[in-house]
Amino acid sequence: MDEYLKRREEFIQQDQSLRPDRAAAGVLSSDEHRADEILRSIRKTEARTIWGHELNVEHYHGSKQMFPGMEFLTARQTIITTKLFDILSKMPKGGLLHAHLDATVRPDVLLRLALSQPAVHIRAPGNLTLGNLKTVPPEFRALPQTEWTTSASVTEAGYVAGSWVPIHNARSTFSEALGGPEGFDRWVTGALTIDPSEAYGTHNTTDRIWDKFESIFGVSDGLFRYVPIFKEYIREFLLSSVDDGISYVEPRILFWYKYMVGEDGVENVPHRVWFQIYESVLADIKADLAAQGRADEFVGSKIIYSTMRELTLDELEWYLEDCLALKQEFPHLVAGFDLVGHEDSLKPLIDYVEPFMRFKARQQELGVEIPFIFHAGETLGDGTKADMNLYDAILLGTKRIGHGFSIFKHPEVMKVCRERNICLEMCPISNEILRLTGSMPMHPLPSVLNHGVHVALCSDDPSAFGNMGLSFDYFQVFVASEVNGLATLRQFVWDSITASFYSCLGDQEKKRAFGILDRQWAKFINDILDRDTTHRSA
Amino acid sequence: MDEYLKRREEFIQQDQSLRPDRAAAGVLSSDEHRADEILRSIRKTEARTIWGHELNVEHYHGSKQMFPGMEFLTARQTIITTKLFDILSKMPKGGLLHAHLDATVRPDVLLRLALSQPAVHIRAPGNLTLGNLKTVPPEFRALPQTEWTTSASVTEAGYVAGSWVPIHNARSTFSEALGGPEGFDRWVTGALTIDPSEAYGTHNTTDRIWDKFESIFGVSDGLFRYVPIFKEYIREFLLSSVDDGISYVEPRILFWYKYMVGEDGVENVPHRVWFQIYESVLADIKADLAAQGRADEFVGSKIIYSTMRELTLDELEWYLEDCLALKQEFPHLVAGFDLVGHEDSLKPLIDYVEPFMRFKARQQELGVEIPFIFHAGETLGDGTKADMNLYDAILLGTKRIGHGFSIFKHPEVMKVCRERNICLEMCPISNEILRLTGSMPMHPLPSVLNHGVHVALCSDDPSAFGNMGLSFDYFQVFVASEVNGLATLRQFVWDSITASFYSCLGDQEKKRAFGILDRQWAKFINDILDRDTTHRSA
Repeated sequence: MDEYLKRREEFIQQDQSLRPDRAAAGVLSSDEHRADEILRSIRKTEARTIWGHELNVEHYHGSKQMFPGMEFLTARQTIITTKLFDILSKMPKGGLLHAHLDATVRPDVLLRLALSQPAVHIRAPGNLTLGNLKTVPPEFRALPQTEWTTSASVTEAGYVAGSWVPIHNARSTFSEALGGPEGFDRWVTGALTIDPSEAYGTHNTTDRIWDKFESIFGVSDGLFRYVPIFKEYIREFLLSSVDDGISYVEPRILFWYKYMVGEDGVENVPHRVWFQIYESVLADIKADLAAQGRADEFVGSKIIYSTMRELTLDELEWYLEDCLALKQEFPHLVAGFDLVGHEDSLKPLIDYVEPFMRFKARQQELGVEIPFIFHAGETLGDGTKADMNLYDAILLGTKRIGHGFSIFKHPEVMKVCRERNICLEMCPISNEILRLTGSMPMHPLPSVLNHGVHVALCSDDPSAFGNMGLSFDYFQVFVASEVNGLATLRQFVWDSITASFYSCLGDQEKKRAFGILDRQWAKFINDILDRDTTHRSA
Repeated sequence: MDEYLKRREEFIQQDQSLRPDRAAAGVLSSDEHRADEILRSIRKTEARTIWGHELNVEHYHGSKQMFPGMEFLTARQTIITTKLFDILSKMPKGGLLHAHLDATVRPDVLLRLALSQPAVHIRAPGNLTLGNLKTVPPEFRALPQTEWTTSASVTEAGYVAGSWVPIHNARSTFSEALGGPEGFDRWVTGALTIDPSEAYGTHNTTDRIWDKFESIFGVSDGLFRYVPIFKEYIREFLLSSVDDGISYVEPRILFWYKYMVGEDGVENVPHRVWFQIYESVLADIKADLAAQGRADEFVGSKIIYSTMRELTLDELEWYLEDCLALKQEFPHLVAGFDLVGHEDSLKPLIDYVEPFMRFKARQQELGVEIPFIFHAGETLGDGTKADMNLYDAILLGTKRIGHGFSIFKHPEVMKVCRERNICLEMCPISNEILRLTGSMPMHPLPSVLNHGVHVALCSDDPSAFGNMGLSFDYFQVFVASEVNGLATLRQFVWDSITASFYSCLGDQEKKRAFGILDRQWAKFINDILDRDTTHRSA
């Protein structure tokens, strides 16, 4: 039997030998070992005490039986009551490498920002009723003062469908039958988020939930793409990230629209001004944090230039040149280039190979480097165009892969990623809500890790999903596997900084980022041990 | 661009180089190529015409949006209307290597068999109401004539809970309020099957649906384990398999109960008589088929001796000795040994390593060979006991793996399976209904194939799932991937015979099985082409 157990242990070691967290697991300090045991013990206990029963409600969406890693939208209220979440929310997270900027600020905060702007108007496409409130979203626009209206309400009998009403009026006069001002808030925030009844009920397939998902961006666009709100939005995104222990962010910003609406309500603010605004807010925040003695909490931010994967080749050329010009003007801010949008239904990378090759040649001419950081394989398809995007992303030299959900099917693609240190930006909660996986235990992440591919956990579109920061994604991943331990968490965090070097962080920044991370991590471990001691002696 | 496309093609080829169907794809005949194109074309058309809309019902379970490979219990009625299913139902399937005998005959047929036996009695644990009919299953038992009752009904006011009623009486007097005799039939067949509202609604997690699943076996046991029914049951299983193009079956029979109920209603029929009965029915069927000139449709059948994975070590010793004795008496019928039951909640293989080692030594002593054909990895767990069963199954020398669902997470386990030709018995519909996967496109089968692991598709418990034969499993797998083609189907079929050699088929049988398969396959390809020609000229 001893001989059997020895062979068994060797087999398991061999099976896990490629795991990115293996090196980290081998050099845990004694404090880290204790912290690891504490985390595992809490996970085991809470699996029983928190998750081991049925949802005590008549109407539920998702699973009635609760379990660790269950449907996030149903579980969220429970997750925040756990000890494990409390600990993870205090963990230093390193970098957030995959988030669409226009879906990173809480809907209630965005609504508050909107209400602070008298230029913001709202309209509805028709009569609102209790029956259609959930499926008829509002539209927003900031208007030039000459076009401001004095309309009183979007719900009164005389409302002309599609006509603009000042947001304040619309809110204060929102029909009592529809819930009054609070009903208005629910209408707006509901149009900006996916709820459990949609994700796990009416829209329970990838195609259907993408319909709702895209509708959300239609609603937020009229607010987000208005300079006074944009400024505050960036500020909120950066500060809330720092609050969650994130020290570096690399959001994708969609430059599909060529202009933003300026303070005067005119849609004429070009992309370079967006960058100026971003840079200015970034500088303010760094100064604020420094003034509070918190400079170490934030290393910085760069931007992944993104446009939609539905352009014609000619249209794409314009964006590539735009990106090159921005990189020349803001070399420290442009981290890379990407195409975004639903891979299953829009154009595959293969369609754009020629302009991308010219883009590389142009970079050489201009002496700049703009790495591709492509979305690829965010799909359930096997051999479909979206699945094949993985091959093209690699062949085009992508430095990381956005999602890469379907990579677990592809041994050679995983091998290349392993050998070239191409890190996946995996977004577990996004994948689950967008119905690529039924729950965390079904997610292919363990397969990807065991095949030696590095992964940075990411939140994708937290304002739509409710997974603000990275704590929720870390939580869902940590509870869904008995292999995951402190070394796994540590590796995700370190990889999220390592993987940002390709595109953004220079040697000095790298040194500083890791120095900060080392100090933050030591404190995190101490806090876990202290907390445990206090708990034991209490 | 040409250079790019060349590198791309090489990359894809490399990525798929381990696939078991690669060799078959390379040597397709021109007829097979045409058949492949026809199948792919039908799949593409039906994805739009059959699956491209929403379910036109108010109450649905699973997804409202229909799609290829969607939840089987919701899709079943649609699947049988497709051209693709019609073709696949005529495909020669080779062997069925993973099916639990006591869940292989349609519930309505089992009920008919039961109604033909006056000894069969039924009881209910309490009052039946419209509200509880779905959750209060019946219990059956064949009684000795001295214990037959004259009770009139299980639904009349005076019914004493738990008292036996002759099945005929119970049916004919079943309360009109509960649907009368047809209501009785629905009650019984409902207790023997999983319905969409359970799998995708009330019981939508692996743990919960296993509760219902296990309840089914409690209901069927009282019928299945009665000699007169057992005989007919085997007959039905074998003939319905042949009708679906299956030429060899290797069912798992559960020998957990030491006795079956004999014709006289006494529970005293030992395992060796079960084997005698099986052998006798097998001989009858072969004779019948030969008499009809259909001898080639059926190669034969052997049995995988199974008991439950919840035994103490001492209890297991009894079964191992029992299995050895049966192998000595029926060397041509015992194919292998396995433990069955819910891996997540029952004992892992590691607990039984010592008796299994002694079992091997005993085989050497006795000069017999009883390969292990272990269930392993039928779980969503990562690093859990059920997931770890994969390591032990391999280390104990399993010749195939039952399910192996979680193997896609384990590179070294897949490598060993690839090198040693350890075939997986994958049960896609079972996995989906038992909620290991949300739908076929989420299933890890493509990953397993791309890593070079051989797979035989299996039905597992078709009477509970409604996937009688193998056509449904082939259908669900074929429509869920654009990589799958005729070569994939062919490989599954051939692997299902190849993988039975380990345990059962000798050289002569092997030669005959492949000879038959070659002829059947040629006819199948011809029929596809003929059908297409007829269709085009029509």
